[in-house]
Amino acid sequence: ITSKQPNTGTTIFTVMSKLAADCGALNLSQGFPNFDCSPKLTDLVTHYLKKGMNQYAPMAGIQPFREVIAQKISDAYQINYHPDTEVTIVSGATEALYAAIVAVVHQGDEVILLEPCYDSYAPAVTLNGGTPVYVTLTPENGYKIDWNVVKSKITERTKLIILNTPHNPTGTVLSEDDLTQLAEIVRDTNIFLIGDEVYEHIIFDGREHWSLLRNPILQERSFICGSFGKTFHVTGWKIGYCLAPKALTEEFRKVHQWLTFSTVTPIQYALADFLKEPDNYLSIPKFYQEKRDKFLTCIKDSRFTYTPAHGSFFQCVNYQNITDEGDYDLAIRLTREIGVASIPVSVFYNQKNDYKILRFCFAKDDETLERAGEHLCKL
Amino acid sequence: ITSKQPNTGTTIFTVMSKLAADCGALNLSQGFPNFDCSPKLTDLVTHYLKKGMNQYAPMAGIQPFREVIAQKISDAYQINYHPDTEVTIVSGATEALYAAIVAVVHQGDEVILLEPCYDSYAPAVTLNGGTPVYVTLTPENGYKIDWNVVKSKITERTKLIILNTPHNPTGTVLSEDDLTQLAEIVRDTNIFLIGDEVYEHIIFDGREHWSLLRNPILQERSFICGSFGKTFHVTGWKIGYCLAPKALTEEFRKVHQWLTFSTVTPIQYALADFLKEPDNYLSIPKFYQEKRDKFLTCIKDSRFTYTPAHGSFFQCVNYQNITDEGDYDLAIRLTREIGVASIPVSVFYNQKNDYKILRFCFAKDDETLERAGEHLCKL
Ligand SMILES: CSCCC(=O)C(=O)O
Ligand SMILES: CSCCC(=O)C(=O)O
Repeated sequence: ITSKQPNTGTTIFTVMSKLAADCGALNLSQGFPNFDCSPKLTDLVTHYLKKGMNQYAPMAGIQPFREVIAQKISDAYQINYHPDTEVTIVSGATEALYAAIVAVVHQGDEVILLEPCYDSYAPAVTLNGGTPVYVTLTPENGYKIDWNVVKSKITERTKLIILNTPHNPTGTVLSEDDLTQLAEIVRDTNIFLIGDEVYEHIIFDGREHWSLLRNPILQERSFICGSFGKTFHVTGWKIGYCLAPKALTEEFRKVHQWLTFSTVTPIQYALADFLKEPDNYLSIPKFYQEKRDKFLTCIKDSRFTYTPAHGSFFQCVNYQNITDEGDYDLAIRLTREIGVASIPVSVFYNQKNDYKILRFCFAKDDETLERAGEHLCKL
Repeated sequence: ITSKQPNTGTTIFTVMSKLAADCGALNLSQGFPNFDCSPKLTDLVTHYLKKGMNQYAPMAGIQPFREVIAQKISDAYQINYHPDTEVTIVSGATEALYAAIVAVVHQGDEVILLEPCYDSYAPAVTLNGGTPVYVTLTPENGYKIDWNVVKSKITERTKLIILNTPHNPTGTVLSEDDLTQLAEIVRDTNIFLIGDEVYEHIIFDGREHWSLLRNPILQERSFICGSFGKTFHVTGWKIGYCLAPKALTEEFRKVHQWLTFSTVTPIQYALADFLKEPDNYLSIPKFYQEKRDKFLTCIKDSRFTYTPAHGSFFQCVNYQNITDEGDYDLAIRLTREIGVASIPVSVFYNQKNDYKILRFCFAKDDETLERAGEHLCKL
């Protein structure tokens, strides 16, 4: 068997979570909460399980769920979003990303990725015959995007640009001005966009989420990937959505129907009800801002340097004051010796650029954050 | 946007289920039960939901689930199957099929499909740069496979053959002799196999399920796709598995991790427990044989002709004694006028060969089967 896989081996998340478990370390590596979701939500799933909602959902998702999502998006961004033709329920945002890539990327197409970036983008592009073209962002200037550099990477073959806001791993967010500059670049092209917006509700210090949907030039060419797992502390439920204009949604669904066909029915009904109470998601920014602040308080006596994350549930820290070690080696050593697992940010760069940065997930209960802080301050 | 999709439009299952709902017809089209699963199973899911098993499962699936599956397979086929390296949990058998195809099919490869066949195979092959090569089975000789014809289709480019037993839509099953003949054909080649065995427990009249795993020459090159949705009356839970030897499982997981990454955690724990009581699946053949017999009793005064299904929860019937209409037109008309929805079998042929056959799903409560029978006998 000849591998078609660009990245052999296992994702860093599996590697580090397993190492953390084996060492009994605090696991601040893989991005998931160690606290539970609202009991209202598990009660709702139980209700629909018991009611017998256990057979195939329609391929695009159940109607009431698509409706409440369309309404939420329409209200949030003052646009008119259609549940039947522009919203598709998927088996997690990873599936949404993969299906959108299958839908638009043909053999030989180029796809612009802004690195550091989530580790599924490049393999998904490569498996579908595309070539990733990288724009490299660095910590020196706070990972700010120079849109002239993005523009300089565009060729006749550019088919797609993948954006991510709030950003994993760096915690940065796009601004209205970023969207305007991107719109200038793509307006007279046939380039599609993916907006990986799974942390849409995890954004801090009063910042607004600038979804690609908020700029009409971007909206008409975008697939927006969202995740209920991230928003509602249920990463194990593997349910998300893809928003796209009608023509793009049609192509997306043609792929989705062969990839997974449909998504867990009782969970769809439960989330449809849960979304009807806006407080269930409007409370999330404050909740996670407190988590971020708690983590920063816990590491304030450490020798790490950092800029507070603006969004996502990750905090990156620079350790070059402390050691010269490579970030991968250090992440392994801290797990084994200090008992705290993190993710080395070099894994999110194609060439494994090592800027001496570790990523910590602060979606953890306060006690875990406190104990992690104690260990990390010893370094 | 230029479509990459070979089949535009929507799957027949969505079309017919929607038409059935719109007409208030009895829906014997799409393959799902209209009765519920065991309350033990929903109790178990509820238990794990409440226990907080709501975050990412490991990418390959939780350990106890893989273990009980490996044990079940090892016991059933007297082989030694390994949970860590040969079993992967997926978000439904559709995902397993797609991921196995991504794992082995390269641009320009040929894939042999035995038609009629499930409608996701060809699009999944085409989307990954492969070319479907068809072996056409016909009702005249009971859809029996002539392995010499299969052999004659093999070229230097043949990468994969997809088999399905028990078979959807025809209800036929492979025999030990079929496996032996297939093994002769592939033994000195590099051809891979997919065994779509989602109806493994839905098999009648004392017949044995001849999994590709039972022939060592086939086993070493096979991806076996299984479904808990079909076996336990929970098609809406979207959970299945892929069995493959270590080297193939490694490639499979490399794809699975970018496609969906992992599958709903509380459902994995629940099914792991449920599988520990063999009676939960050993009772299924008898249960569905009674359903088949019930349906056949209900249509015995109709003018349809048929051979009783040997497996799957579908019964095909020939209507050429009754009308000359095309099967697609007739399926639509029966839904509208007689109030019973079915699937025209021509949709499972690449060239839409119409042998005047309709497929009925008998995974329905007795009252539904009786009412459907009454309507159909009027024809
Ligand atoms: C799918 S496992 C990875 C979870 C995650 O989003 C992250 O840790 O970055
Ligand atoms: C995924 S919907 C189709 C269900 C099914 O297997 C069938 O009806 O053949």
